[in-house]
Amino acid sequence: MSGIAIMTSGGDAAGMNPAIKAAVDHARQLGMNPYVVYDGLEGLIDGKIKEATRELTNDMIYRGGTLLRSSRSKRFFDYEFRKQAYEHLKKRNIDKLIIMGGDGSFRALNDFFNDFEVPFAGIPATIDNDIAGTDYCLGVDTAQNVILDCIDSVRDTARSHHRAFVIETMGRDCGYLAMTTALCSAADICIVPEIPYDLESIYKRLQPVINEEGSCIIAVVAEGTRVAQYLTRWLTERAGMDTRLTVLGHVQRGGSPTARDRLMGTRFATRAVEALNNGDINQIMVYHDGQYGYASLDSVAGQQYSVNQDIINLCRELSC
Amino acid sequence: MSGIAIMTSGGDAAGMNPAIKAAVDHARQLGMNPYVVYDGLEGLIDGKIKEATRELTNDMIYRGGTLLRSSRSKRFFDYEFRKQAYEHLKKRNIDKLIIMGGDGSFRALNDFFNDFEVPFAGIPATIDNDIAGTDYCLGVDTAQNVILDCIDSVRDTARSHHRAFVIETMGRDCGYLAMTTALCSAADICIVPEIPYDLESIYKRLQPVINEEGSCIIAVVAEGTRVAQYLTRWLTERAGMDTRLTVLGHVQRGGSPTARDRLMGTRFATRAVEALNNGDINQIMVYHDGQYGYASLDSVAGQQYSVNQDIINLCRELSC
Amino acid sequence: MSGIAIMTSGGDAAGMNPAIKAAVDHARQLGMNPYVVYDGLEGLIDGKIKEATRELTNDMIYRGGTLLRSSRSKRFFDYEFRKQAYEHLKKRNIDKLIIMGGDGSFRALNDFFNDFEVPFAGIPATIDNDIAGTDYCLGVDTAQNVILDCIDSVRDTARSHHRAFVIETMGRDCGYLAMTTALCSAADICIVPEIPYDLESIYKRLQPVINEEGSCIIAVVAEGTRVAQYLTRWLTERAGMDTRLTVLGHVQRGGSPTARDRLMGTRFATRAVEALNNGDINQIMVYHDGQYGYASLDSVAGQQYSVNQDIINLCRELSC
Amino acid sequence: MSGIAIMTSGGDAAGMNPAIKAAVDHARQLGMNPYVVYDGLEGLIDGKIKEATRELTNDMIYRGGTLLRSSRSKRFFDYEFRKQAYEHLKKRNIDKLIIMGGDGSFRALNDFFNDFEVPFAGIPATIDNDIAGTDYCLGVDTAQNVILDCIDSVRDTARSHHRAFVIETMGRDCGYLAMTTALCSAADICIVPEIPYDLESIYKRLQPVINEEGSCIIAVVAEGTRVAQYLTRWLTERAGMDTRLTVLGHVQRGGSPTARDRLMGTRFATRAVEALNNGDINQIMVYHDGQYGYASLDSVAGQQYSVNQDIINLCRELSC
Repeated sequence: MSGIAIMTSGGDAAGMNPAIKAAVDHARQLGMNPYVVYDGLEGLIDGKIKEATRELTNDMIYRGGTLLRSSRSKRFFDYEFRKQAYEHLKKRNIDKLIIMGGDGSFRALNDFFNDFEVPFAGIPATIDNDIAGTDYCLGVDTAQNVILDCIDSVRDTARSHHRAFVIETMGRDCGYLAMTTALCSAADICIVPEIPYDLESIYKRLQPVINEEGSCIIAVVAEGTRVAQYLTRWLTERAGMDTRLTVLGHVQRGGSPTARDRLMGTRFATRAVEALNNGDINQIMVYHDGQYGYASLDSVAGQQYSVNQDIINLCRELSC
Repeated sequence: MSGIAIMTSGGDAAGMNPAIKAAVDHARQLGMNPYVVYDGLEGLIDGKIKEATRELTNDMIYRGGTLLRSSRSKRFFDYEFRKQAYEHLKKRNIDKLIIMGGDGSFRALNDFFNDFEVPFAGIPATIDNDIAGTDYCLGVDTAQNVILDCIDSVRDTARSHHRAFVIETMGRDCGYLAMTTALCSAADICIVPEIPYDLESIYKRLQPVINEEGSCIIAVVAEGTRVAQYLTRWLTERAGMDTRLTVLGHVQRGGSPTARDRLMGTRFATRAVEALNNGDINQIMVYHDGQYGYASLDSVAGQQYSVNQDIINLCRELSC
Repeated sequence: MSGIAIMTSGGDAAGMNPAIKAAVDHARQLGMNPYVVYDGLEGLIDGKIKEATRELTNDMIYRGGTLLRSSRSKRFFDYEFRKQAYEHLKKRNIDKLIIMGGDGSFRALNDFFNDFEVPFAGIPATIDNDIAGTDYCLGVDTAQNVILDCIDSVRDTARSHHRAFVIETMGRDCGYLAMTTALCSAADICIVPEIPYDLESIYKRLQPVINEEGSCIIAVVAEGTRVAQYLTRWLTERAGMDTRLTVLGHVQRGGSPTARDRLMGTRFATRAVEALNNGDINQIMVYHDGQYGYASLDSVAGQQYSVNQDIINLCRELSC
Repeated sequence: MSGIAIMTSGGDAAGMNPAIKAAVDHARQLGMNPYVVYDGLEGLIDGKIKEATRELTNDMIYRGGTLLRSSRSKRFFDYEFRKQAYEHLKKRNIDKLIIMGGDGSFRALNDFFNDFEVPFAGIPATIDNDIAGTDYCLGVDTAQNVILDCIDSVRDTARSHHRAFVIETMGRDCGYLAMTTALCSAADICIVPEIPYDLESIYKRLQPVINEEGSCIIAVVAEGTRVAQYLTRWLTERAGMDTRLTVLGHVQRGGSPTARDRLMGTRFATRAVEALNNGDINQIMVYHDGQYGYASLDSVAGQQYSVNQDIINLCRELSC
């Protein structure tokens, strides 16, 4: 019987666990032998591979992070270690791989295919939502809702004291999380890498709010802009408001996956199993214009992701 | 200055409040005078119309239900009452309307337009997600997440006692909520109007689960099938499991809107204001194949909504 | 080395898992050999006993229900089955037991002690909070917060439609859950076994609310009163309000334990291990007047529990 | 008719809003005229006083922070400003005050009484739980649950990557929040002002955990110790684990109040109104050894608060 192994790689994201479960269940239904690899590509090298039992996937549907654990692997760039990984698979008759993560992880398995002809399917999973070719990556919806809960909490306090709060969200090169949560929380300011900002024009726009009794100011800032601390001082000094900074950090990654992340995870994973079963090899699962589909590695990894223009336009008003 | 009035109609749905806020804010930006109508079409007849102040919309972004309240109106079918409604608008120079609700509400405003030429824009809002022409209606994502939280809770108890639970979700003619939450919660059984079910084959499929130590069975059933009570007895008698029924009821409607409902609400409402501002009258805002667009009343109200075929296929395995 | 076995019995309650973890950890620290029994007294009879590994208790701190599962056992009343249970313990050198549940479970282990001299410690755990001698039973705080979330959700909908809602909470003979959540949610009506109610005087009190625009009525009713359906009809007919009934059911039991249930569980369990270690046998852990202590079985099981009089007085205003 | 004014002061805390509502409602029932003061003592000086309408308190039961807003006032130390405040009260016939906050706020109203004989009642409200004479201050339970949610989220990520996380909670001189949430979340390390810590012995204790596959380390640190950054580096270098720091910040203050904070708020406020009605003036409401009672200002403000010794003992194991 043909074996299929499922693994997670790179930063963890809510929705990975439901996707693992769906992949295991669907593989079994199609008559494959499902395995899991612990610790991502590092674990593949070290042979941390187990048969996927029902017990293993029992509670996965509602657990955050990844129960298979994850890693970033330098060793996998080295042919010797890839060879070692291949031996572990061969021994168990595993001839198909599913990997969840970002484009670096997909590339790694593509190199692996070029060496040993083990085909793979890739599932985009990163809370930054910055993978080209797909409108959605696993983990984004959960992260957005966690951030919103935090902003709603902070707003209670901000209102109680007529204060300003600067909230720093994750997002190195991509302001998707910051933009969407700024819109969702009716924030007053949003600063992201995609949009130039103008503090003086922000000041003019917000002056009525600053002077209004019982008001507060909420600014959402993407980590990658590195302006959170500066903006905090600026709001204190220029706008004259008592201002606090909250860096959300890793709280954003975790938590029980939302309905959307569970459903997307289930559907991506089911399709990944089917792709491999039908001989559609080395494809990345994507969700684009409301449709599920496959994309080639090149179309995903060779492109710059750009946020939907409408979202950028809506946020532009919050940057000036 | 041109006035625009915003109202909610029919069953309430999370996401209505963020949409009201976005409509009011955007109308003001475009130089219109924003008003709100309380109690839907009933309130329109009775002149429950107020200028929309900043204070009114302050906290709307995170509040469930609709702060404008809603109703179903029989009087509005009567020309005399529609005339009365029109007088209230005319007196305030309101010459545009935005309504959130289902196709009945859109039709009502279409009749109103035929009488008095007050154009409208419609925003689909119903947790049943059963409006043709749009893939998404406001309130669905929040409802899904509330249902999931309930099923996750019930599963804790089900596991603790090796029990079966039947969960009845809302959904009269449409099993969308039941199907998606069954998939999201890894339910064992799903019974909806769209899919014929076969209890004996369900029994055969689940026999290993029933006999497994520490297992439980979760069945999600759409209200419209009216089989919740029957299934509860059947599971007790035929499957021999201690089985309980939970009817979720109106808990599903409420709660603070999720990120998705806030964002969709904001975008539908912004576009509704723009449509009216650009002279695109009597359009329904839709989200289809990942794109926002407009649809005519006929294409929305004259059609039978059908759930995405992939979702039906995935659920078919849970119905037999 | 002396063995100690931990089990859960009767209805499941949030807080059981954190208590199991704390008991296992503390027993190990004190040099005992910790075991767990699956499926309560039924499992004890059938020898479903395992050594408690670190892996087993790893995630228990945030899981709802009981991962050891629970049961109600008729067989345990029979000496032959108790003997069988004893053999399972003897074989493993287990000479101490910790049981979480209600007074029936404590009694059962007391009988067991009379037969075989295996001492036990009892931890009160039931969402009804109806065990005499202790002000708090595990699971209550989580249940209260789950109920509150539901009522807050329902209130959104109630306000949106000027409706009344009747919410039935768990509680057979004891209205504690209904009373506390009625107070916490600013309900308008509360009907419990402990307080006589007078619908006509309720009607008079609520008349201004009924007539007020944008108001709603929330009634919280304990299951044991069996008046939920009647009250729903009465509110519809006498008060003339569109009224809906929501039976919360088993949703109330589950969910991740709150801080209070985790902390109480940890402290009850730590003390239970210490009691047995110090030779204080067959004691029930209690929390009374802000102090942790022990109570004898007779003082717990032979007494009628009564709700704090202040709470009853505050609720009296909601019953007339 | 006698007037009573309610205000909030110092840092905001969940539970303030439900307490305001209960005070207003109960005052009205006892025939007093309820008022609210906005912006604490600053607002009292500036006459920001309104009659408390039903509409004002409608949604207070589930709102976080304080809808009356709060402040710290230097001006109130000055007799002239106190006199000005008194004139505002006199004009409205307000002869009783209820204040929620910490001991500084209680002292301020005591000085005010010495000047103008306006009696007050104090309700302890601070998430630090550091007011002597009472076992509970409003806001603590909500803060604990918010912190727990964050730690549960972070643990998902920590497990997924075999990482350590340092979580800094609020608490300047008092480690109550850090200690209780460390226990509730099964943290591995807890560092608070009350307990000396020993990193080398922590290292020895945790070595097996560090080496265990799939493990993670969670450290909870009170803000007041100022060791969060140092501990993060130490865990990275000495323990060799990839370690991240999360400073929870103001997220901890907010959020919808839990059942416990709503119930305690309701009961403190009801009793505060009764105290003033019965002529028990200038009392602080306390909850001690499971009983509600009054304490004099001196017994509250002149004493050092100390955390329950049992909690300290349980945490001592996490500090070495």
